[in-house]
Formats: sequence, C-alpha cells, structure tokens
Amino acid sequence: MLEIKVNPDIRLAEQKEIIGHNRWHPDIPAIATVRPGEEIYVEALDFLDCQIANNDDVSDIVNIDLTRAHPLSGPFHIVGAEPGDLLVVDLLDIGPITPFGFTGIFAKENGGGFLTDYFPNADKAIWDFHGIYTTSRHVPGVRFAGLQHPGQIGTAPSMEMLHKWNAREAPLVAKGRATAPFADTAFLGSLKGADFDRVAAEACRTVPPRENGGNTDIKNITRGSRIYFPVYVDGANFSGGDLHFSQGDGEIAFCGAIEMKGFMKLGFDIIKGGVAKYKITNPIFVPGPMDVRFEKWLMFEGICVEDGIQYDMDATVAYRRACMNCIDYLTTQGFTGEQAYMLLTACPMEGRIGGIVDIPNCACTVALPLDIFDKSILPK
Amino acid sequence: MLEIKVNPDIRLAEQKEIIGHNRWHPDIPAIATVRPGEEIYVEALDFLDCQIANNDDVSDIVNIDLTRAHPLSGPFHIVGAEPGDLLVVDLLDIGPITPFGFTGIFAKENGGGFLTDYFPNADKAIWDFHGIYTTSRHVPGVRFAGLQHPGQIGTAPSMEMLHKWNAREAPLVAKGRATAPFADTAFLGSLKGADFDRVAAEACRTVPPRENGGNTDIKNITRGSRIYFPVYVDGANFSGGDLHFSQGDGEIAFCGAIEMKGFMKLGFDIIKGGVAKYKITNPIFVPGPMDVRFEKWLMFEGICVEDGIQYDMDATVAYRRACMNCIDYLTTQGFTGEQAYMLLTACPMEGRIGGIVDIPNCACTVALPLDIFDKSILPK
Amino acid sequence: MLEIKVNPDIRLAEQKEIIGHNRWHPDIPAIATVRPGEEIYVEALDFLDCQIANNDDVSDIVNIDLTRAHPLSGPFHIVGAEPGDLLVVDLLDIGPITPFGFTGIFAKENGGGFLTDYFPNADKAIWDFHGIYTTSRHVPGVRFAGLQHPGQIGTAPSMEMLHKWNAREAPLVAKGRATAPFADTAFLGSLKGADFDRVAAEACRTVPPRENGGNTDIKNITRGSRIYFPVYVDGANFSGGDLHFSQGDGEIAFCGAIEMKGFMKLGFDIIKGGVAKYKITNPIFVPGPMDVRFEKWLMFEGICVEDGIQYDMDATVAYRRACMNCIDYLTTQGFTGEQAYMLLTACPMEGRIGGIVDIPNCACTVALPLDIFDKSILPK
Amino acid sequence: MLEIKVNPDIRLAEQKEIIGHNRWHPDIPAIATVRPGEEIYVEALDFLDCQIANNDDVSDIVNIDLTRAHPLSGPFHIVGAEPGDLLVVDLLDIGPITPFGFTGIFAKENGGGFLTDYFPNADKAIWDFHGIYTTSRHVPGVRFAGLQHPGQIGTAPSMEMLHKWNAREAPLVAKGRATAPFADTAFLGSLKGADFDRVAAEACRTVPPRENGGNTDIKNITRGSRIYFPVYVDGANFSGGDLHFSQGDGEIAFCGAIEMKGFMKLGFDIIKGGVAKYKITNPIFVPGPMDVRFEKWLMFEGICVEDGIQYDMDATVAYRRACMNCIDYLTTQGFTGEQAYMLLTACPMEGRIGGIVDIPNCACTVALPLDIFDKSILPK
Repeated sequence: MLEIKVNPDIRLAEQKEIIGHNRWHPDIPAIATVRPGEEIYVEALDFLDCQIANNDDVSDIVNIDLTRAHPLSGPFHIVGAEPGDLLVVDLLDIGPITPFGFTGIFAKENGGGFLTDYFPNADKAIWDFHGIYTTSRHVPGVRFAGLQHPGQIGTAPSMEMLHKWNAREAPLVAKGRATAPFADTAFLGSLKGADFDRVAAEACRTVPPRENGGNTDIKNITRGSRIYFPVYVDGANFSGGDLHFSQGDGEIAFCGAIEMKGFMKLGFDIIKGGVAKYKITNPIFVPGPMDVRFEKWLMFEGICVEDGIQYDMDATVAYRRACMNCIDYLTTQGFTGEQAYMLLTACPMEGRIGGIVDIPNCACTVALPLDIFDKSILPK
Repeated sequence: MLEIKVNPDIRLAEQKEIIGHNRWHPDIPAIATVRPGEEIYVEALDFLDCQIANNDDVSDIVNIDLTRAHPLSGPFHIVGAEPGDLLVVDLLDIGPITPFGFTGIFAKENGGGFLTDYFPNADKAIWDFHGIYTTSRHVPGVRFAGLQHPGQIGTAPSMEMLHKWNAREAPLVAKGRATAPFADTAFLGSLKGADFDRVAAEACRTVPPRENGGNTDIKNITRGSRIYFPVYVDGANFSGGDLHFSQGDGEIAFCGAIEMKGFMKLGFDIIKGGVAKYKITNPIFVPGPMDVRFEKWLMFEGICVEDGIQYDMDATVAYRRACMNCIDYLTTQGFTGEQAYMLLTACPMEGRIGGIVDIPNCACTVALPLDIFDKSILPK
Repeated sequence: MLEIKVNPDIRLAEQKEIIGHNRWHPDIPAIATVRPGEEIYVEALDFLDCQIANNDDVSDIVNIDLTRAHPLSGPFHIVGAEPGDLLVVDLLDIGPITPFGFTGIFAKENGGGFLTDYFPNADKAIWDFHGIYTTSRHVPGVRFAGLQHPGQIGTAPSMEMLHKWNAREAPLVAKGRATAPFADTAFLGSLKGADFDRVAAEACRTVPPRENGGNTDIKNITRGSRIYFPVYVDGANFSGGDLHFSQGDGEIAFCGAIEMKGFMKLGFDIIKGGVAKYKITNPIFVPGPMDVRFEKWLMFEGICVEDGIQYDMDATVAYRRACMNCIDYLTTQGFTGEQAYMLLTACPMEGRIGGIVDIPNCACTVALPLDIFDKSILPK
Repeated sequence: MLEIKVNPDIRLAEQKEIIGHNRWHPDIPAIATVRPGEEIYVEALDFLDCQIANNDDVSDIVNIDLTRAHPLSGPFHIVGAEPGDLLVVDLLDIGPITPFGFTGIFAKENGGGFLTDYFPNADKAIWDFHGIYTTSRHVPGVRFAGLQHPGQIGTAPSMEMLHKWNAREAPLVAKGRATAPFADTAFLGSLKGADFDRVAAEACRTVPPRENGGNTDIKNITRGSRIYFPVYVDGANFSGGDLHFSQGDGEIAFCGAIEMKGFMKLGFDIIKGGVAKYKITNPIFVPGPMDVRFEKWLMFEGICVEDGIQYDMDATVAYRRACMNCIDYLTTQGFTGEQAYMLLTACPMEGRIGGIVDIPNCACTVALPLDIFDKSILPK
C-alpha cells in the first residue's frame, strides 16, 4: 500500500520528502499515481502548519500566519480520471498521529471567526486524546468521542475553473472579505523557478469551499464515507488535509475544530461521465456508518434578528443567534463565554436549518449533545 | 383530561365552539385554564384553514388566502405562569386526525417559497397516511415514516414585545418581505366589538418564528419533546397548531411540510424566573426519543455562489444551492423538478450548516435519506 | 376501512359483536374478509381478558384464570392466501385505547414466571400512559417511552400442524410444563354446538410461540414492522392481540410486559409459494424504523452457573443469571427486588446472546437503558 | 505511555519479550504495574496463537491445536486494587495491527461449534480489512463495518475462585463438555521450574467466560466501553486478548468472530469495595458510544423445537433454530450453508431473547443487518 508519511513536528515546506501543497492550482505536480481500486495511506499536518504548541500560551494564536493554511497532502493522480468524470473516494479510516489537538479563537485583528464581534480576543484550548475520547484542561467539565473527518479534501480545479474563482472572489477580496492569491507563503510541491512564480501568483487560497470540495468543514464526511468529486483535470489531482478530531457544525471559531495531525486511508474509483449524468455541481457524499451515538440533545433556536435589527431571511444571522443563545446558556452553567465558544466549535454539535420560508425570520438551531457534560445542564 | 376537539371539515371561524385564533396578541382570551402537572388533548386544523382539498386540482393552491394562516388552538392559560418564567411544555404525543395531508408549491405571485425563482408555478401533492408511513400519488416512488411535529407553538407576546415586533418588521413589510397586521381575516377567539377591532389592527401575523417560538417549523420538536418557552404574559397563553406529518429542514416549499389536521397531547410545568436564570431569548427544547431511524443518506453540498455571483458568507444562498443541487440530481432519477421540490419539503431531509467561517463561502448541506426510495438512487 | 372495535371493559365472550377467539384452530370462523392491499383497524383486549383492575390490590393477579388468555382479534381471511404462501403483514400503527396498562408477578402456585423461584409471591404495577411515555406509582423513579408491539400475532395452523403441536407438547403437558387444550374457557368466535365441542377439545392454547408466530413476545415487532407468516390454511386466518405498551426482552415476569388494551392498523399482501422459495419455518420480519433512541446502557453478564451448579451451555440459565445480576444491582439503587423484576419485564431492556460456544459456559447479557431513571445509577 | 508490543508473526511462547499467558491463575506474574488514571497501549495475538495463515487451505483449521488458545496480553498489576474492589477499565480504543483476519468452522472432531451437527466439516474465510470495512474472497457479496472488541478480558481469579471453577467444571470435563487444565501447552509468563509445574497443573483454561469476565465474546464491549470487573487478587492482574474485528452475537462458529491481531488502548480506575456495594457477581459494563449504524434488519425467529422434539424452555435450542432458519434463508440467496454460517458468526448480527416464559417454547431471534449485502435479500 502506498504510504505518505509526515514528520508531525516540521512545517510542510521543510518536510524531507515533498508531500503536499497549500494552494489550489491545476499545475501543482502530483506526488504519486494511484490506480482505481487501489488503497493508500496518507498523513497530513494540522491546518496551521505546525504553528501551534501544546502549552497554555496564546501568543501563537495571536501571531498566527494564516497564509500558511492549509498544508494539504497530495495531489494524487488517479489513473483514468478525466474532466467530466466523478472521482469516487472512500474515506476508509481516519485518525490522529499525535496525542493532542487544538482549538483556538483568532483575535479579531488576525483571523476572527463567526462570533468575533462577541469574542474579539485570542484564546486557545489544547485537547488530549484518550482513544476515541478527548478532554481539555482548558475546557473542564466535558469529555466526548469525536467524529474524525477531513476539513478539506478535493480535486484540482482546471485553469478555467481557477480563473472563474479568482474573478468572482475579486470584489470581496477588495473588501477584505475573501483571500487573494499570495505567493510569499505558497508551497506548491515540487514546482520551482518560473513555473513556481507563475502558479504562485494565480493559485487560489485554500480557505473557502468551492466546486472542487475544498474547505467544506463538514463533520459528517467521517470514517467510512464515500465522496463523489467532479473531476476537472486529467488524473483528478486529489488532495486532502486539515484533519479534525471533532467539530461542531459551522466550525464557528474558524480556528477551528479540534485540529489534529493525522492519517487517512483512502480508496479510489471513477464513474465515467458522471458529472453530466448526475448533474453534479458540488461534491456529493454518503456519510460513513460509524456514528457517535447521542440520545439527548438540548436545542437552541435563533432567528435573524440581531441587535434589534430585523434581517430578511438571513440564515447566517439566525445561526449566529442560535450559537449565541447556546453560549449565553452555557455561561449559566459554569463556563466562560470563550470556553463555551470553543466547546461549540469543537464538540459534535449539530447546526440545522429550521424554517427558511417564514418571512421575515429564518430559524436555525444548535443542538448540543447533553452527554458530553459531566453533570446535567438541563433547566430545573 | 381536558379535550379540545375540532371539526376537521370546517374553517376555524365557523367551528361550533371557539377553539382558537390566527394572530398573536396578549389580549386574545384564553379558551381554557390548565394547571401545572395537568395533561390536555388538543386538536388543530391544518395551517391553511381547510382551504385545500384531497384532489388533483391545483386551483385551491393558486387561489389560496394566506391571511387565514395559521389557525392555532388555544390560548391556554397556565395557572401560576408569570412573565420571566419558563413554561415547560411536554409534547407527549402528536398525530393526524384525518387520513391524508398535503404539500404544495405556491405560485410566485401568491405565496412563493424558497425556490420560487426556479419553480414559479403552483403545484400540489396529496399524501395518504398508512399508519406511520405516507405515500403520494403525486410523488410516486417514495414511502417513508414521518416525524410528526407542530410547525407552530408558542406563548403570547406581551404588548411591549408585540410593539417591538411590529416596529422592527415594518421596514420589511414596506418591501413586501414581511406580513403586516391584517384585520379582515383575523380570528381572535371570543373577542368581539371594539376589543376585536383594536386587537385585530395590531395583532401580529403568525408567519415568522419569533421570541415566543411561533412558526419555527423545526421538525425535531417531535413526539416526546420538552420545550421551554419564555413567558411574557400572566398565564403564558400558550397556543399551537400547523401540525406536520413530516417535513424536511427548512420547509422549503412554504406550503409546506406534509400539512395535516391533527392532535397533540400536552403536559405543562413552570420554572419560576427561568428566563433570567438561564439567559433565555428564544425557546429551547429537548427533542423526543422516538426517531425515525435512517442509516444511509446522500448528502449534497451548496456554497454561496448563485448565478455566477459570489455572495459573502450567506448561509441562505448556500442552503438554496444545496437544495437545488439535490433537486437537479433527483431529476436524473425520474422525478420532475416540482416533484423533487415537494419531496424535499415533505420528507425527513436534514439541512445542516457546514463551514460558516471560510470566507467568502459558506457551505450548507442537504441530507437525503436513501431508504425512502423504492430503488437505489446512488451513482453507479 | 374495516374497523373492528372492542368494548375495553368487557371480556371477550361478552362483547356485543363476535370479534375474536382465544385458541388456535383452523376451524375457527373468520370474522371478516380482507383483500391484499387493503388496510384495516383492529382493537384488542388485554391478554388477561379484562381480569386486572387499575388499583393497588394484588388479588386479581393471585386469583387469575390463565385459561382465558389470550383474547385475540380475528381471524381475518385474506383473499387468495393459500397454504405454502407467505402472508405479508404490515403493522402500520399500534397504540393503547385506554390510559393505563399493567404488569404483574404471578404467584408461583398460579402462573409463575422466569424468576418465580426468587419471587414466588404475586405483585402488580399499574402504568399510566402519558403520550409516548409511561410511569408507575408502583415503580417510582422511572419514566420511559415504550416500543408498542403485539405480544401475539399469527396465522391459523392446519389440522396437520395442530396435531403435530398437540403430539409433541403432550409429554411436557404431562409434567405440567406445557398447556393442554382446555374446553371450559375456550372462546371460538361464532362456533357453536357440536362444532364448538369438537374444536374446543383439540384447539391449541395460545401460550407458546410456534411455527405460526403466536405468542412470540418479541418487542421488536413494533410499529412499522413487516412480518412474513407461513400460510397453513386457505385465507391464512390471521389473528392478533396481547398488545404491549412496552416490554423487556424475554417478558420475564410472564404477566408480563406493560399489558394494554389497544389497536393495530394492518396492511396485507401475499407472496405466492414463498414458504418453499425462501425455506421458511417460522415467521421472519423487518422491524419498523421508529425506535426509541437510547444512548447509554448498563449491561449485565450472566453465565450458566446457578446455585453453584455448572450447567452445560444453557442459555436459559445464563439469561436468568444476567437478569438476577441486574435485579441484585437495582436493589442497591433503592428498588425492591419485586420492583426491579417488574421493571425489567416492562421497560425496553435488551436481552442478548453472548458467547454460545465457549464450553461449558454460555454467556447472556441484559442491557438496561440508563435514561429511564430519574438519577444516575452508575457505580461511583 | 506504557506500550506492550507483539511480533504478529510469532506465537506467544516465542515472543522476544514475555508479554502474556494462556491460562487463568493468580500466580501468573504481572508483566507491568499500572497506576489508576494511567493509560496503556497493549497489542495481542489472535486467539489461535498464529496457527492460521492467509491462504485458501483449510488444513490449518483441521489440525488446529486448541489448547494454545487464548494468548492473552498481561497480566497488569493495578496499584491499589484489592479483592472486593471493582476494577474500572476504559477500552479507549481497539483495532487491528495486520491487514486481515480469519473466520473458520472447526471440524466436528476437533473443536466443533454451535452448528457442528449441521456443518461438521472444517472451513475457512479470510477477511481483508479496508479501514473500518471488511470483505472476504471466501464470502463474496458482503461488505461491512465491524464493531471491534476483545473476545476475552478479565481479572485473575483467586485460588479459592480457581478451585471453585475446577471443581464445578469437573463433571462436564469428564463428559468432554468442558476443558481441563492442560500443562503441555500452558504459557504462564515468566513462571519457570517448579512454580510453572504447579501452576500449569491447576490453571484454568481460557475457553469459557466466568466470574472474572474471561471469554465472554460480547460484541458490545466495543471501543469506548467502560467495564467494571470484580477484583479477586491484589493488583487485580488484568489481562486481555482474543481481539475481534467483528462478530455476530454468540460467535456461533466458535472459530469464531473475525479473529485479528490487534491493539487496545486502556485506562484504569478503582472503586473501593464496589463488589459488595453493588452486589456484583459477573462484570458489568457500559458499551461505547461509537456504533455501526444499521437501519434495516431481517429478523428470524427460532423456538425450542428441533428434529421434531419439543424442548422445555430451552433458549440454546431456540437460538440454534433461529440461526438455522437464517442460514436456510441465506441459501436461497446464493450463499452456501458454510458461507452463511461463517457470515453469521462474523458480521454484526444481533441475537436476542424473545419470550422466555411462554411454556413450553422459548423464542429467540437472529437479526441480520440488510445493508451488509450488495443486493436486496428481502422476499419479493
């Protein structure tokens, strides 16, 4: 079995072997060729490229260089995959390769997050892994099993797709609401010289999810899942990383889930012409059958009214209100707001769409699993 | 046990007994008084107040009078409930009282829905109930068990809350994006004369969810759930209706879920001073333990890019794209777009928030339970 | 829809209409004819034929006439069903028709039960129904949702099958370990005169499960289940009753589950020649999709060693030990042994086979759902 | 973290380090000392001590030396554990260390199994692991995720307990229905000389489950489980092995589950005086929260009638009939009887107790998960 290993203590650019990249571009060379039916073992660094240490000092979060995100392992060239095909990827297994992970709150000035207006200061929580469970000295009172998953997996875009992405994101880049290509910290596998310069100047950042999958941060793409990706270039050029030990829906703190250095076992297959046949725009997937079983949930509603302002069917606002309602509640149970924020982004909380047609208020919900707490947090 | 029964063939205003209302206002008189610990049985009409017939003719949907929504049963005065308390409501059971329900697509000119730009024409599906299962002659090829739930339950607002609602919604009312008070079709229980006129002129419509609960359309408030409502007026004045045999997250067609005439068994309790103690803004709840068990789901991703436009972290757009990706897929499996739309709004589909921090793209997902289909719809 | 209703206060023999029988025999006349595809509504009395009252007096259990068990509703003649076919029965819905049920411990002298050597005295618990939940004033400290199911459903035996049953059970009848035909309390629908006498003398008692299904007491045949029964006579002559609000695996107290008077909604279909085609001896079934969701269980092991005696791979003994280990444990949590015994037979406890090959000890387990208790019962 | 590693290609007695034993006895020396709160990593050989090869040749099964079962890793001395305490063991994780496992049918003359009278000849199936899934070239048409678990874990018996076991099993040993101490193949850790001879002559074989846990073969003791063991000797002397990738309830083929060489991560704690406080005879446990999720099951009933003989409430016979009914059915779906037998012992099939009070017939069930098959096996 092909095995791609990393040294978990060393940033991507300094690994002994070239094992990955941190931008999306069709010309990043594949690190290996895989045949349909073959299974591979791939390790990956954490999404912040080894910048975070297992300690109680938050300065690494404060000073983070976000342009080094996300060190992805790959690309893998899948023999026979052509544009218009569906690449079938079986996430056969996934897990950590070091005994701890981290969650953080980026400072509002450097990274921010979904609730940055409420929690503008940086914070950090280290999570120790105990087999399937995790606990944190920074968020006492909880212990839970995580749903491991890759925050980011996807196929390489074609040049046409890449140009489309850059073009449509440009207006938001101008407002500081999207990330532009950034050559200084680009790592593009074995590319060198003029090729490197050309690609680095136009390669998309890995921050957002897009038509190739990418940084979807969907916790349900967990072990045993089968994902169907549109293929945009010959060989598909599949990559993945940003592995999470656990995450709540939304990855609301941005930094992020319980971020880990880990491994994936992957299998591959191809459905010829599947994109047109099934009218695929974004990847689709069948979640794996191995769930963490929770019986009891406490659910919080949010509607799109914030600071007295009535928004028009805005699910983003509604979800933020649901999150804040949950956090407010948790502060009545002995957690600080920051702890509650980090808990929501880290634990297997579910974020759902409620009514999305009942003008003018969208409703969203946050479902908090009650069994992660060491005491009952229900109202009495 | 107190029993509130309806004649399922007759609109609210013409029921023999006064059993409900279709607006929110503190001065709508309670129809009964209930003690904490007491259990009651309450029937309710469908959310369109008996305007829809079990036939293949879509004209009732086309010509619908939406201002008659939602005929709620109640209010119930809970002895001892005071503003600032939490009203604990146990939804002990829920079910249909007639053997069929309906789902519709409102015409764009009259009602619309989440996907009205894609499906502007009215349509209708009648669902026959077979015990816990349902099938539709209008959406062949599916059969599923529903998660029954009330689309709308809540406590009465105080006058202060009511004024706040009317004030903040007014700007959107002006744009046709919210519903103003509307006296013509208001039904306010036993209110008459000048009292009626005053209340009808200012009572809030029941369309959106608000701080009292209201039309949240959350499918997980199913049998066995315990809901904690903020109390705004003496006695809480609790009401409910708009019962659903089944619904997908978002109730995307607006008309709506599988709408039914049905019953609820309810129990009540009070947590004194619970609003401040637990920092409650919107209701919170613990979903019931009786789930429909699904193993396999096909999940669709959506990002906030629509018609080539890059939106800025807009979960509403991302969810719409996830829905459309799912519907496009279903059209490759023998469904028309309209059938697929009605299926998504009717079946226990799950709508989730994916990454909501990865600028500029929010990701949302639609999870379609595979076992509702009479054949495999997976890509091959 | 065909509706068979009972007066829940009156024993089977005195119902106004003839709606059932309490013995198995091919010549018991069908009460109605049903076509494949048709759905029916059927009510049934409790398994003790209205002998138990909602009070705190155990004398009705002490003096029970067990020969009146089980008043079954039916038989139903299914058009087109012939010997060798499979009768497909959809249990579309099931529920109580009165607001309470009962569990008892039969005295060792009159009925007994699985643990009668440990609990020889009669006892009784009344369970009040609160929608999907139940509580008992006789077993305080627990509240749970039940999995409703028929304790007894099945098709009529052929004369050949009937004779086989009587012949093979005769040796155990002689030892008091099986029940012989008993004419005195036989109720055989509309049969009268000589026909009655003949049939009553040879009709099998309904106590054990047999090749026709019968008294299987399997809690997983719950709402939404599809059961495939072998057909032994023309029309299948299907009957059912002995409805349970909830039951633990084994129905260990014999009297029994939470016994209720209730209803079933049923649908029918036929698979021609299915018995041979699928090599069917006993019924097979697909459990319904509506489960009560439990996350946490406390499991107890039992092995086939009892009173110091080493049994040889005896699952019956191993299961009894698992039950007694659980009951012993519960007595350290504030329950009397009798309460614990009634709780195990009444709640959705799971009884499983562990190792059944590791000579000389079979292992069985009892899994107790922890969320039924109002406090934690885990070891500390 | 303490790590006990094995060479997976070498039998226990020839491992470079002394890491285990294959008998139960209080005087087998601990291989390591562990403190409460400490976590350890332990590897273990397969239960047949490396006698089975990954090939299509069944002769290794035919000629198996069963007296070498089970090579257990340990014992571990837990600091502070004393007789009468409960040893709390957290099974934090478990998994394979080689990419395949095996299932076999022992010949009737050498080992046998639950259905040996029906399947007297030896057979073998090799299972390849694909992350959480497994497939077998010897049982085509199935693919499933397994519930990994230790077939055997337990604490060391006291001398008193050991003597009790030997005494009560002796009568069955005489009949060939239990296993006597057997010195020739005993491996007792670091014991040597006279000590070895003494202990080897009286140490209990590891075949059956007993009061210390032992070979319970309970599939629900899976990752994340917490088990409470009675402590019989100072330090508890905890051991474990016989790891399974997956198993059906009963491990009916005896050889066995999907047997693997694997690892466990374990944590330990102590409840002082817990045995008396909680009236513990056999271990109790809380299953882990990471389940394989199955929606649809086909369930088979069995009653205690075999070869025309009516048994008296015999759950062992009833379970055998349920298994045979399932196997007969599977032979109508393209499987040989032997394949079906090996599938039932290998896949996560559930074996349950149905009615165990309805004289004279006990009912047991086998629940087969339908999603493990690559086609529908339901009756049509």
